[in-house]
Amino acid sequence: MKKAIFYHAGCPVCVDAEKMMMGYLDRSKVDVEIVHFGEEPSRIAEAESAGVKSVPALVVDGQPYHINFGASMEEVKNG
Amino acid sequence: MKKAIFYHAGCPVCVDAEKMMMGYLDRSKVDVEIVHFGEEPSRIAEAESAGVKSVPALVVDGQPYHINFGASMEEVKNG
Repeated sequence: MKKAIFYHAGCPVCVDAEKMMMGYLDRSKVDVEIVHFGEEPSRIAEAESAGVKSVPALVVDGQPYHINFGASMEEVKNG
Repeated sequence: MKKAIFYHAGCPVCVDAEKMMMGYLDRSKVDVEIVHFGEEPSRIAEAESAGVKSVPALVVDGQPYHINFGASMEEVKNG
C-alpha cells in the first residue's frame, strides 16, 4: 500500500482538487491522508521538507505533485 | 464513468506524473486517455480550450488540473 498525503489550505482550488483526488484515486492501492494547514500548521515544515512549494499538493511516497497553483507556501505561512 | 485526458509532452516530470496517475487512479471510475503533444500536435488547441496552461495536466470532465509545471504550453508549441 502506497502512502499519499494531500496538503491544502482550504482555498477553492484546493477543495476542488481534493474532491477529484479523493473521488478517483484507487483506495485499494493508496492510503490517503488529508492535511489542512489551517488546522495543522505544525506540518508545514514536513511538507516543505518533502519539496512542497504550493498547495494543493499530493505527496506520494515522498515525491511531491503540485496540482494547479492555488497558493504559494509563503502565502500559507503568512496566513 | 468519468472521462479524463492526461496531456503531456514527454518531459521527465510528465512521465513521472503519468506513472503516478495511471498507477493510482481508480480505472473502474475514470476512463483515462493519454495524449502526447509530440505525437498529436493537432490536439494542442483542444487542450488550450479546456484551460490547459502547462503540461503535464489532467482534464477531468472539462476541468483542468495542472500537475507541477514541467513545461508551459508556449514551450510545447515552440518545440
